Amino acid sequence: MASNSPLATQQVFIDLGERSYPITIGAGLLGDPGTYLNLPTASTALIVSNDTVAPLYAQALQQSLQGHYNRVLQVILPDGEAHKDWPTLQLIFDALLANGCDRKTVLFALGGGVVGDMTGFAAACYMRGVPFVQVPTTLLAQVDSSVGGKTAINHPLGKNMVGAFYQPERVICDLDVLQTLPPRELSAGLAEIIKYGPIADMAFLDWIETNIGALLAREPAALAHAVRRSCEIKAAVVGQDEREAGLRAILNFGHTFGHAIESGLGYGQWLHGEGVGCGMVMAARLSQRLGLVDAAFVERLDALVQRAGLPVVGPKLSAADNAGRYLELMRVDKKAEAGEIRFVVISGPGHATVRSAPDALVREVIDVSCE
Amino acid sequence: MASNSPLATQQVFIDLGERSYPITIGAGLLGDPGTYLNLPTASTALIVSNDTVAPLYAQALQQSLQGHYNRVLQVILPDGEAHKDWPTLQLIFDALLANGCDRKTVLFALGGGVVGDMTGFAAACYMRGVPFVQVPTTLLAQVDSSVGGKTAINHPLGKNMVGAFYQPERVICDLDVLQTLPPRELSAGLAEIIKYGPIADMAFLDWIETNIGALLAREPAALAHAVRRSCEIKAAVVGQDEREAGLRAILNFGHTFGHAIESGLGYGQWLHGEGVGCGMVMAARLSQRLGLVDAAFVERLDALVQRAGLPVVGPKLSAADNAGRYLELMRVDKKAEAGEIRFVVISGPGHATVRSAPDALVREVIDVSCE
Repeated sequence: MASNSPLATQQVFIDLGERSYPITIGAGLLGDPGTYLNLPTASTALIVSNDTVAPLYAQALQQSLQGHYNRVLQVILPDGEAHKDWPTLQLIFDALLANGCDRKTVLFALGGGVVGDMTGFAAACYMRGVPFVQVPTTLLAQVDSSVGGKTAINHPLGKNMVGAFYQPERVICDLDVLQTLPPRELSAGLAEIIKYGPIADMAFLDWIETNIGALLAREPAALAHAVRRSCEIKAAVVGQDEREAGLRAILNFGHTFGHAIESGLGYGQWLHGEGVGCGMVMAARLSQRLGLVDAAFVERLDALVQRAGLPVVGPKLSAADNAGRYLELMRVDKKAEAGEIRFVVISGPGHATVRSAPDALVREVIDVSCE
Repeated sequence: MASNSPLATQQVFIDLGERSYPITIGAGLLGDPGTYLNLPTASTALIVSNDTVAPLYAQALQQSLQGHYNRVLQVILPDGEAHKDWPTLQLIFDALLANGCDRKTVLFALGGGVVGDMTGFAAACYMRGVPFVQVPTTLLAQVDSSVGGKTAINHPLGKNMVGAFYQPERVICDLDVLQTLPPRELSAGLAEIIKYGPIADMAFLDWIETNIGALLAREPAALAHAVRRSCEIKAAVVGQDEREAGLRAILNFGHTFGHAIESGLGYGQWLHGEGVGCGMVMAARLSQRLGLVDAAFVERLDALVQRAGLPVVGPKLSAADNAGRYLELMRVDKKAEAGEIRFVVISGPGHATVRSAPDALVREVIDVSCE
């Protein structure tokens, strides 16, 4: 963070005692062997990627790692949230055991949130824990999912229901890889970036509004700032509450409604970031109905989410009782307690809190928010 | 530990900072609601047991817990090491999600090592971690597997390969339940008790030799002492090295050979404790060939393992190259590094260390130890 040049490599630290680690943000990192210095020593590295990302970047990572490890293995998973399940996770364990990988083996997650979550969970569980490194290749993973140690797979009855808090050794955010990201994935990442404004930093929300065009145009300086500031906010929150005993739950702003959409449509129909984008608008409307923010705040967020290329109208999840179906899906959210849904609401611009809400209010929000 | 009466309830503490917890040892604990005071508050408890243990003890535990929780649910798994796998683990997640269990739900592991390992791993993973309590019903689980936070399931290519270090809230060792244990299971538990002698406490080994008859006759005073002293030794080791960075590996004395036997025959043919009993004799022979202990030490251990009703002759795992097959299986042991097997050997009476050994010596040991 010494230089003002936006593409100078920058570092953000996650301060978690002996589990602390740096997030490195810059250009050209992936193919630079220097990026991977001072990781735990091991004879073997395993790159975990998917069949979309691997053809683009696995070779460059492989070459960068070859000077550091005797063996650099790869396992390529099928792409998509629909494969964030046990049978796919098992492919990682199969590769590790078939190759006689010991418990010093370092795993590298090369891909988006799904690859990161699955590789992290595999690392948490293989021989009860091996080191891993996040190399996120989507904007969403760079600003959110690769940071903070949440790992998981989905269960047919709920998203991210089986997982672990398990911190990586390092997160490597190469901004260059964002240039090949499909536009829909770019927008999905912007949803999580926008999120940090209302919950923590209204000045950052101002900046995003001013720079949304530059972000959509993938201008490196704008991307670098957005990734760094997002990681800083997430680092500050996670540093205070690693295991989501309280504060950390604010990072789930928009996620309770968003998860219901993702789960109700079947994983993979809407991208996670799309669910979060629409979910934030719904959560803002709930905050307004609870008397916490005014209509102008909701409209401002709604407009920005739309400008980011994200949906703001929720899908119908049931012809008979749409709001009831949303409520049913939200009751299995991990924040729920004794069947009571806990919503992240905006308690004032730049501040979030977690609370329950009357079903009638939630139904109103769903009714006005869905097609 | 205030009373000299062997059946007064006693406590041993595992000192792991904020993850510390007590082991309660006594008679009549399972059916006493007072045993379960001061656990984390929750609306729901889930008892996980198997189809052998549940008919004997699930009802008593259910009744004890009903005063503490609004709902006490049960999930009954098929019995046996052959079911220590993902599909069986999934039954626990299915029950939790189908019943809308939140992340305060407390899991109770009622059974032997397999139930404890699986319940602990499910607790580690469900919503990234819920509290759990160990209620071990086998001698082996009371003196070893329920204490120290190792949880896991098996993979077709190796035992306990997928798991977590995850500590329970409490371990409840009710000595009464040992009266219904099949004789083979009693002997299996004695293997892990005997283990603590050579690695840590030769006076305890003397005591076991003197009292092996009383232990086999299930005399409560003898069982109480054996369980308490075993837990004390394990607590001291785990308190120094929770995640097996070094010292803790000595608790695996006999396990490298034992796991090869279990895995080579197919899980469930030999009990875990039987593999450990025979494996300890093999590891002692290796220690002797490495010049660390004398023949008298090996003979003494061999005789005690036999008196405990345990096998001391290893099975043939391959007609063509038996020793080669053992070596192959041992190379996937979690202690192995870069393909080199790490053996726990006795470095002198009451002391153990971890080291590699020449293949030729290991082959000799296997050749003289197998039928």
